[in-house]
Amino acid sequence: MQQETSSAVEARLAELGHALPAVVAPVAAYVPATITGNLVYTSGQLPFINGELTATGKVGAAVSAEVAAGQAQACALNALAAIKDVIGDLDRIVRVVKVVGFVASDPTFTGQPAVINGASEFLGAVLGDKGVHARSAVGVAALPLDAPVEVELIVEFA
Amino acid sequence: MQQETSSAVEARLAELGHALPAVVAPVAAYVPATITGNLVYTSGQLPFINGELTATGKVGAAVSAEVAAGQAQACALNALAAIKDVIGDLDRIVRVVKVVGFVASDPTFTGQPAVINGASEFLGAVLGDKGVHARSAVGVAALPLDAPVEVELIVEFA
Amino acid sequence: MQQETSSAVEARLAELGHALPAVVAPVAAYVPATITGNLVYTSGQLPFINGELTATGKVGAAVSAEVAAGQAQACALNALAAIKDVIGDLDRIVRVVKVVGFVASDPTFTGQPAVINGASEFLGAVLGDKGVHARSAVGVAALPLDAPVEVELIVEFA
Repeated sequence: MQQETSSAVEARLAELGHALPAVVAPVAAYVPATITGNLVYTSGQLPFINGELTATGKVGAAVSAEVAAGQAQACALNALAAIKDVIGDLDRIVRVVKVVGFVASDPTFTGQPAVINGASEFLGAVLGDKGVHARSAVGVAALPLDAPVEVELIVEFA
Repeated sequence: MQQETSSAVEARLAELGHALPAVVAPVAAYVPATITGNLVYTSGQLPFINGELTATGKVGAAVSAEVAAGQAQACALNALAAIKDVIGDLDRIVRVVKVVGFVASDPTFTGQPAVINGASEFLGAVLGDKGVHARSAVGVAALPLDAPVEVELIVEFA
Repeated sequence: MQQETSSAVEARLAELGHALPAVVAPVAAYVPATITGNLVYTSGQLPFINGELTATGKVGAAVSAEVAAGQAQACALNALAAIKDVIGDLDRIVRVVKVVGFVASDPTFTGQPAVINGASEFLGAVLGDKGVHARSAVGVAALPLDAPVEVELIVEFA
């Protein structure tokens, strides 16, 4: 799926030191992203890096907020890969409409916004004004494969 | 609301051994589904079967992943009933855009994908390619009425 | 952002004893609401009242369901302020499509529907038939700043 393009968004990613990863194969019976009208809905993205989870456990306990913010960035990068897979070119993104960030949280941990900023700030850095979004961040009891963070996006494209 | 139709989707449901249930009355001040444009948003569906919850408690503790997968299927069936109630005929479904599955989870339980596969695989069996969706599966602290699973759908129709 | 208008919805709010608050500044790197097509997506709204959280902790433990329902209403009011900020006049609302209510829950608390009714019934009181929505209510492990409730809306406008 990943081929060389003249995509400005991918050039910006490279500038920031990131390469678009291969699309993460769903953990189960679904697809990484769907299109309806001019919207892409991504599946909840786990923070796989080179196919592996580099941190597991609850934020506020086994995983620090700082590490978790990096994990949220990894989720967002995987989401971009999933979006490219269905629209072909990230330059078609008009705006990120919504981000929902689920943080596997120790019940005493209430710093979900700073964690999901790892995704939000990354989207802003990569996409500029087009990356500014509405967002919900919540602390959940547990996530698939004991991942500390899961992030989903809704993106408008042209 | 339920009447005999020549719906191919309902015929497929019957073939799989399911009858579309009566629409589950909301537990509170809202409706089972709304339409905007060509999208249906369902409310979060609980796994009522004949009006009753057949399992309660947290998955990974009182409820096994296997039982929970069956509960997720019940949620999806109730979602189809809610969708039919607002679009009249399930054959109008063009695609399932998004599924969000909330699994009431013991904090040590991280097998949410297999649980929500109970919904995803069921939608695939009933709707074929039209049932393939983006999905998020998360483990929450507790669900209404101590239900083990809650599933919401966004569906595009024509 | 708040100026005098002849808005029927704001008049109804006043009748119910509410003034539209200032838009709550996001806790992090995002915006209170975005528009795509004729939909507004709000960020998850916390129950700030005059810029402060008036209750913190888990529902079913430190916070009662009754108090939490009032907190959910505060979230909905803040959501209306966020929506006005992007569409200019709440009379443009055609319908509330979806409400998702996250309740920071003690794992034994399963009364999320009654809590989120604080938002749902308020939207019905303010917007009438236009306020009737699909809804999901779930119990999460923790919320930002230890808020007991977070509510997000999708609204169609003309």
